[in-house]
Amino acid sequence: MSEPFACPLPLLHHQTVQMAHGAGGRFSQELTKQVFMPHLGNAFLDLMDDQAKLSLPSGRTAFTTDTYVVTPCVFPGGTIGSLAVNGTVNDLAVGGARPLYLSAGFVLEEGFPLVELERIVRSMAEAASKAGVLIVTGDTKVVQRGLCDGIFINTSGIGVLRQDVTLSCRNLKPGDAILLSGTVGDHGMSIMTAREGLSFQSALTSDCASLNHMIEALLDAVPDVHAMRDPTRGGVAAVLNELAVSSSVGVEILEDAIPVKAEVRGACELLGIDPLHVANEGKLIAAVPAGEAARAIEVLRSFEEGRNAAVIGSVNEGHSGMVVMKTLFGSLRIVDLPAGEQLPRIC
Amino acid sequence: MSEPFACPLPLLHHQTVQMAHGAGGRFSQELTKQVFMPHLGNAFLDLMDDQAKLSLPSGRTAFTTDTYVVTPCVFPGGTIGSLAVNGTVNDLAVGGARPLYLSAGFVLEEGFPLVELERIVRSMAEAASKAGVLIVTGDTKVVQRGLCDGIFINTSGIGVLRQDVTLSCRNLKPGDAILLSGTVGDHGMSIMTAREGLSFQSALTSDCASLNHMIEALLDAVPDVHAMRDPTRGGVAAVLNELAVSSSVGVEILEDAIPVKAEVRGACELLGIDPLHVANEGKLIAAVPAGEAARAIEVLRSFEEGRNAAVIGSVNEGHSGMVVMKTLFGSLRIVDLPAGEQLPRIC
Repeated sequence: MSEPFACPLPLLHHQTVQMAHGAGGRFSQELTKQVFMPHLGNAFLDLMDDQAKLSLPSGRTAFTTDTYVVTPCVFPGGTIGSLAVNGTVNDLAVGGARPLYLSAGFVLEEGFPLVELERIVRSMAEAASKAGVLIVTGDTKVVQRGLCDGIFINTSGIGVLRQDVTLSCRNLKPGDAILLSGTVGDHGMSIMTAREGLSFQSALTSDCASLNHMIEALLDAVPDVHAMRDPTRGGVAAVLNELAVSSSVGVEILEDAIPVKAEVRGACELLGIDPLHVANEGKLIAAVPAGEAARAIEVLRSFEEGRNAAVIGSVNEGHSGMVVMKTLFGSLRIVDLPAGEQLPRIC
Repeated sequence: MSEPFACPLPLLHHQTVQMAHGAGGRFSQELTKQVFMPHLGNAFLDLMDDQAKLSLPSGRTAFTTDTYVVTPCVFPGGTIGSLAVNGTVNDLAVGGARPLYLSAGFVLEEGFPLVELERIVRSMAEAASKAGVLIVTGDTKVVQRGLCDGIFINTSGIGVLRQDVTLSCRNLKPGDAILLSGTVGDHGMSIMTAREGLSFQSALTSDCASLNHMIEALLDAVPDVHAMRDPTRGGVAAVLNELAVSSSVGVEILEDAIPVKAEVRGACELLGIDPLHVANEGKLIAAVPAGEAARAIEVLRSFEEGRNAAVIGSVNEGHSGMVVMKTLFGSLRIVDLPAGEQLPRIC
């Protein structure tokens, strides 16, 4: 928290979260009315019912959930709140759905500063507005000091599936081009360096962003995209391995085609971490028929979030279920799943 | 946990949750395949996509979320897992929706025993089966030892609203009868006594149950129910106050009409707690036109969960926004919202 008391909340009886804020009584109402509703209020949430009543457009419905436990909860480029909105929006969008409605479930630690909470809630509202989604139902629990790490947020999301696309991680076909929408590792390394207080941290910013508008444009232009994923936990390596295994194909990527910022590469080398294993929170991996690759890249690059988009590899029939990378030295190496936990609590 | 090693999980590499189980790599997959999928697996979850693709029946959609942080996570009559399923099912049902699909988001503490997790997941599956809902999408995060209290679970739920009912907490009308489906305080006091190790704990069991089948039957018989709520956090007192304020009416209840088990009453007296402030997890409050009260009670009593259903009071035009109780001694007292936090982490 860079400005701990920059925004006092004079109408509240306390400066920090109290156990009573989670008890469902008077203080719960005060927290809702003073901290949550000024930022998140809308026609659904204002009703204060236990459930939102929605009229969904026709079509199949996509449903997803993620809990966010990132630490620190405010980091260069975002907060746990904007991450919670963007992450769930992106999980819907990569499935071919138009994200519409989110829920928000908070677990707060007794003693958590209310100005910090207000900042996080505000960043959620801003992220939701940018993505064009509404937070329509919510819940807040409080646990005693020392029994949670400040704040955890669950967001679940509902979207309506486009009817003109059939995306699946089982859809990769030999010959497909593998596209990546930008530089890898920005989110993970910005969290890592913010956490460790490393000296180059000022240069690193999370890529935390909603991708639904860019994905919508991509699918409008190239409805025949075979598969899309956002490379979050486990990074590009984990996603490519899942795609290769699910589709029973091989994936070959080219090291010199993968965009990596110099400062991210430097931090990774310093810490002994493979950038392909580092989480991203505003990047897209897509498999498209080779003939559509140029058009897809053009669409991606027309968005700020995709300006560094590149074809990073292709799908083949060999080494089924495996990902290999042609290195800068011309040799081939296997790109494996990260086995352990190099970067805990990145999202 | 009563039988800590009764169900070893020999296929797992560890006995307890590791940070790597939340990293999105090989160990995450192992946890999913060995602990979650054997109990929760279904046609949606088996696809292991980041989002479930659902074909909802026509009608408006209800959407709700709740995070569960109850301690202890296994208690007489349930676990945090069955509570997470039943609580969200009930939040949908009291809004007049048929619950269909749930998400499940886990936050696990490093070191949490995997046999305990397996027991909780199994109880989720049993509760979901009983309620007739499917858990279709999920997420697991792990935080370091000491940074969460064992296990927290978020469930969000989707249901389809019945078109023949218009329930709202703003719908109470003077003359309505206030119905309660059974004894108050069972969940809260069973948690409290389990936690404190009080000697009468063996007699107290949580009422944790899904109410959607009973509510469905009630609405089939009495489509003109005006409002329904489940009196969880804050108890019967909080729900009645919310209804009275939202509808700008007065509510009067009769102390001798409110079912309370002797052992719950005894525990409340010992601890100085008003049973009307204690959480329930398998009870329904409904406001119905007076002429429908007898039929509604008959339907409720035909279900095991509603066998002690009773008319506990009525709605009037006086003292708008207030709840008063006629005591056993014939005097009137105000039933207020619980102000602070008497029973933390009850759900």
